[in-house]
This record gives sequence, C-alpha cells and structure tokens, in this order.
Amino acid sequence: MKLPLGFRASGVRAGIKPSGKPDLALIVGDGPLAWALASTENLVKAPCVTRNRARAASAQPVRALVVNAGNANCANGDEGVWDNEDFAAAAAGALALPRVQDVLTASTGVIGRRLPMDRVRSGVPLAVATLGDEVAPLAEAILTTDLAPKASEARVGSGARVVGVAKGSGMIHPNMATMLAFLLTDAIVDQTALRETWARVVRRTFNQITVDGDTSTNDMGIALASGRLHADHDELTGALEWVAGELARAIARDGEGATTLLTVEVGGGRSEAEAMAAARAVAGSSLVKAAVHGRDPNWGRVLSAMGQSGAVADLGAVTVRLQGTTVYQGRPLAFDAAALSQAMRAPEVRIEVDLAAGTAEGHAWGCDLSADYVKINALYTT
Amino acid sequence: MKLPLGFRASGVRAGIKPSGKPDLALIVGDGPLAWALASTENLVKAPCVTRNRARAASAQPVRALVVNAGNANCANGDEGVWDNEDFAAAAAGALALPRVQDVLTASTGVIGRRLPMDRVRSGVPLAVATLGDEVAPLAEAILTTDLAPKASEARVGSGARVVGVAKGSGMIHPNMATMLAFLLTDAIVDQTALRETWARVVRRTFNQITVDGDTSTNDMGIALASGRLHADHDELTGALEWVAGELARAIARDGEGATTLLTVEVGGGRSEAEAMAAARAVAGSSLVKAAVHGRDPNWGRVLSAMGQSGAVADLGAVTVRLQGTTVYQGRPLAFDAAALSQAMRAPEVRIEVDLAAGTAEGHAWGCDLSADYVKINALYTT
Repeated sequence: MKLPLGFRASGVRAGIKPSGKPDLALIVGDGPLAWALASTENLVKAPCVTRNRARAASAQPVRALVVNAGNANCANGDEGVWDNEDFAAAAAGALALPRVQDVLTASTGVIGRRLPMDRVRSGVPLAVATLGDEVAPLAEAILTTDLAPKASEARVGSGARVVGVAKGSGMIHPNMATMLAFLLTDAIVDQTALRETWARVVRRTFNQITVDGDTSTNDMGIALASGRLHADHDELTGALEWVAGELARAIARDGEGATTLLTVEVGGGRSEAEAMAAARAVAGSSLVKAAVHGRDPNWGRVLSAMGQSGAVADLGAVTVRLQGTTVYQGRPLAFDAAALSQAMRAPEVRIEVDLAAGTAEGHAWGCDLSADYVKINALYTT
Repeated sequence: MKLPLGFRASGVRAGIKPSGKPDLALIVGDGPLAWALASTENLVKAPCVTRNRARAASAQPVRALVVNAGNANCANGDEGVWDNEDFAAAAAGALALPRVQDVLTASTGVIGRRLPMDRVRSGVPLAVATLGDEVAPLAEAILTTDLAPKASEARVGSGARVVGVAKGSGMIHPNMATMLAFLLTDAIVDQTALRETWARVVRRTFNQITVDGDTSTNDMGIALASGRLHADHDELTGALEWVAGELARAIARDGEGATTLLTVEVGGGRSEAEAMAAARAVAGSSLVKAAVHGRDPNWGRVLSAMGQSGAVADLGAVTVRLQGTTVYQGRPLAFDAAALSQAMRAPEVRIEVDLAAGTAEGHAWGCDLSADYVKINALYTT
C-alpha cells in the first residue's frame, strides 16, 4: 500500500522495545498539513497528548508526526514533559524544520518509565534517512502487543485517497483508549471542516470499540491532509469513516487474547446516542464477551447488559438476534441451541438488538474474553 | 450461628438446581417485620424485584421472604410475573398467612427459563416444615456458583443482634448486581429510619464491590427487623454497616475464579462520591485486576484507572501505595519490584490512592481477574 500524495513515512528499530522490533515511526508532509486531533479523556494524559492538544488550540498546520512504541512516556513527572519536547525537537532538527511546534508526537507502551532518549536521538535520523512512500514500515513500527499491522485505504471519487494505520490491543475502549490511529489524505480540505468531520468519524468508529473497558492515557487519533487533490467533502467524510471503521474493527478483532470479532448492532433507539450506548454496553460486558468466547447463545446476558446501558427500551417488544437467529422477542423464543452455538464458531459473531423504542441506530465492536487475555495482562511489566 | 430473636428460617432441596443442592430458602417473622429494600437499577428487572419494589411503596410491614436459587425467573414475559406471584402465594398458603402481599420473593440463577412451579410448590411446604433458628441452611440454599456460604453477625450494645447472609459471584457490581443479601435484626427500629439507614449502608458496602462490571437483573438487599429489643440507632447503623461490609468483602473474595480480595482505599478526594468513584474504577479495571492476579506491581494501570473515574486529582501530588509500599508520588518512585510482587502473594491485596485534592475518603472491594473467570463464564447455560 502506498501513501497518499504529499506524504512520506518510515519505521525503524531504535531499540526502545526490548524485543528489538521496529519502534520508531515518522510521517512527514512535503508541505504544510491540515490536521485534526481526537485524544483520550483520561485525567492522566501523557505529555504527547497534552502537547498535541495545546498545539491543536491554534489553527496552524503541522509538518510531521513522530511516534514511538514500547514506552508511553506517561506519569514521568516534569522529566517526561521535557523528554517529549526533546523527541519533537530531534525530529524537527533531523528534518531541518525551523519550528519544533510543527512536529506532533505520539508514544505508546509501558507507563512510568523514562523514554530512553539516547536511543530516540539515534533513531530519529535513521527514520528520516529511510522515508519513503510505503505504508508498511509505518504500520509495523507503531505496534505494541498487536498480533498484526493494521492499515486500510479508500478512494475518494476524484482520485484522492485516504490511507490509515492503527495500533490497538488492550485497554481499548470508547474515548480513545491505548490506541493510536493516523489517517492521511491527499484531499484538499479546510482545516475547520476536517476537524468537524474527524470528531464525528471518531465518535462513530474508534469510540465504539471496546476490548477491556479501560481508557488509556496516551490514545490519539490524528487526521492529516496534504491538500493535493480536489475532493467532494461528503465523499471524503465517507472515505474517512470507512477507513476508520475498518481500522476500528481490526483493532477489536486483534484484542488481547481475542479469537472473534464481536459486532453489536442496535436499532429502535430513541436517539443515536442511546443506541450507541446500548451497543457499547453489550460489546463491553465481560459476561457477554465470555459467553461469546464459549460460543454460548446466552441472550440473557445480552438483555442484562442492554438494561444497564441507560438506553430506553420497550421490554415487551425488545428483540435479540444472535448470528441472525431471533432468540428473544419480549419473551424467550425456542431455538436450536446446539446449531446456534455452532454458528457462533465464526471469525465474527453478530448480536443484534432492537430496543423497540424509536428509529435510531447504533453499533459497537468488541471481541470475546479469553483466558489468554488474562495471561497476557497478568504479566506485562514484570 | 443463630438467627436474631423473632425469626425462623430454613433451606431445602426443591430440585430447581440441576446439582440437587439446596435451592429454596424461607425467612419468617414471628410477627410483623419492618423492612427496607435496595434493588438493581438495571432496566431489565426480574418480577421478584418489580414486585418487591411495588410492595416497598407502601409503609406496611411484611411477614416472610421466600427465595429460590438456580433460576432467576427473569425475562419470561407475563408467565414469569404470574409464576412469581404463585411463588409468594405458595409460601403464604403454607405459612397460613392471610395476605400474599406479606410475603416478599427473591430469585437468582439463569435468566429466561421458566421457574419449575411443580418443584417450587412441593418445596415450599418442606421449607415451612423445617423452619428453625439456625442461619446455616438459609445461607446455603441461596447460593449459585459461590464457593462458600456467606454469613456474618454483629451485636448492638443492648443485646440486640444483626445477622446477615449473602450470595454473590459473577456480575457483582455497584447498584446491586447479581447479588442477594438479607440482614436480619431483632432491634426495635422505625421502618422509615431503617429505610434511610439501609440506603446509606448499601451505598457504602454492597454498591462498592465489583467483580466483573455487570449489573444484574435480580439483585436485592433486604433488611428485616423483628423489633424485639431496644437499640441505639447509631449503634444499630454501625452493626448493619459492619455486617454488610463483611458480606460485601466475602462476595468480592469469592468472585468467580478469584484468588485474592482486592481492597482499594482512596483518600484526598473532593467529595465522598468522587473518592468512592475512584475506588470503584480501580477495583473494577480489568487491567488492574489482571495485574493483581499476576502479582504485578503495575501502578501505571492504577493511575490510568483512577484517571478515567471522573474524580479530580492533583496529578503532581497523587500518591499510589501497593501493599503499603509507596510506588508513585507525583512521579515514579524506586522500589524493589520483586519484593513487592512477593508481598502481593497474599489473600488480600491493598491498593491505596491519595488524590491530593481534598479530605474525603472512599473504598471499594474487588478481586483479581483469573483465567478461571473466563472458563466459568464461557460455559454457563449450555
């Protein structure tokens, strides 16, 4: 996969990850880039988040984004703030950019360990030296415990493109849990319009995935536009949402220890917000996730999770469907449990709920909860 | 353990549980009982919850409480409502009580299966015939997947007593997840005062435990007072909170697959509500729970969980202590990770957080997240 016009990127081994895998990535615009930021709502924010948020307060474009994986540089006190600033400065210096503020930063990994600045400083020039037009090195270098790189693309009618990369795995939850997503487009788009579009796209995609209910300190989604090709705004919005949705599903499917993508579709809501909340509640319920893992058509847990979401439903008419089989409609329906359990042995399990209270729709993505999730997360830092 | 004065109770095998274990319990007052109810906030409520809530709208005392385990009688449509009414009527009939409304009901178990009314009807007279003054049969017959019965008692100064029993395990979360708790006292207490006290006691005890974040359809906490002995109201409140706290910790310790009780104590909050919310967020985080399971002193996850609770904290002064060792104070502190990991191999792991934003305190109880939790919950109905 190639980058959109006006971008170069790279991913290199800086030695930040103990595994020795690629861990430092760079995205550079040939010229100024319009951009939009969505970031974690956690009270505890890593310096990269705080700095990018402050930077977003101005309408100024940026030129580059530098990313490291393997170390979140979070909760390191003032030293962490300075390290982050030095990280941006190293990239600005190696790229010969006059202003450090034109470089955004992103970090992901373990919290509370100082960023190894000697390795960062020697890695950045390597990243600059290897800049190219391929997506793969970038997609690889931003991963942590992900099993696979995540990249997706879409064409806008005019020939413009949207290309996105993401990393997820663990702590994935609405409001940008430990997740990084970068979407690049060569479309011409006004920065104000891009920011409005991006907020809605993130709300309907990345904020509707849940792996374990935790919302992290470092999560960011950034859209960057090089402004090379004309594009219809609605088509661009559609392409951004399509790529973001593909990445969101890829993140959910790759949840730590997950074996199945869980897709929840809710209809009949009084509002989109309520339908989305109900979908998140079902996709995020540990009991639903464990039942999906066991291929157990346990609709009672679906109903119970829906019931704690705050969404209004007409309980006498609520419908629950598992893999296309209606199992509840105001009361339990007879179904072949063995056959349905067999049908749940699929790469994607689909739960549909009709709240019977209105016409609004919502969706959410998650994954099953496996014993491996516990094993992965019981021993992470030590 | 003996029941307080003015109560008799029993627990029998009615054949509702496939295991053949005791599954039907009865609590009877020798005279009218003052009572107070706390129940699930889930939109989906079992008929026993709905009926008891309606019953609580009047100030009338009750005479008895009949409980079954193994079947939640929830989401069974109108038939479930009638079955629940018949359950109460069977108890009223066997006890020769003139008014069915003087009998409260409670059910716990699988959702969406009809209550086997023939077994219930033959079990109720057996429960009446075996009424006695021992707590043990009652404590045993209300269990589902619990590993052990849960009972606790406290004396009020005057000689009055508070005795409580509870069942938990799975779906335990604030706002009365699949949990039943019944506290009995022979103290004389005005029903209005009992209801006010009970609401506060439940808020500070049962609503501060979390096993898996799910809030269930059937959960109830009921306090019953036979009014035999004078008691100071503050002393009675203290005894109720003590017994409820003991039961809450027992429920958390016995969470499905749990190996450790997780106690979270938060200080320095702006308000009790914020401190309680922060404590719940830490105790309920899947990542914190998995780290506790792995005896991993991963304070970053504690900080991150605190940060998503909504509680205000002074991040430059926040303190995190694990098993008494301060590991973070505005920045990471050096500590012996191996020794601390060893100290976490205990029946109780204690996490203390100081928000440094005020003087209010809060607490919450949970358990570690083990691979066994997933195994238990992946195959429950099938």
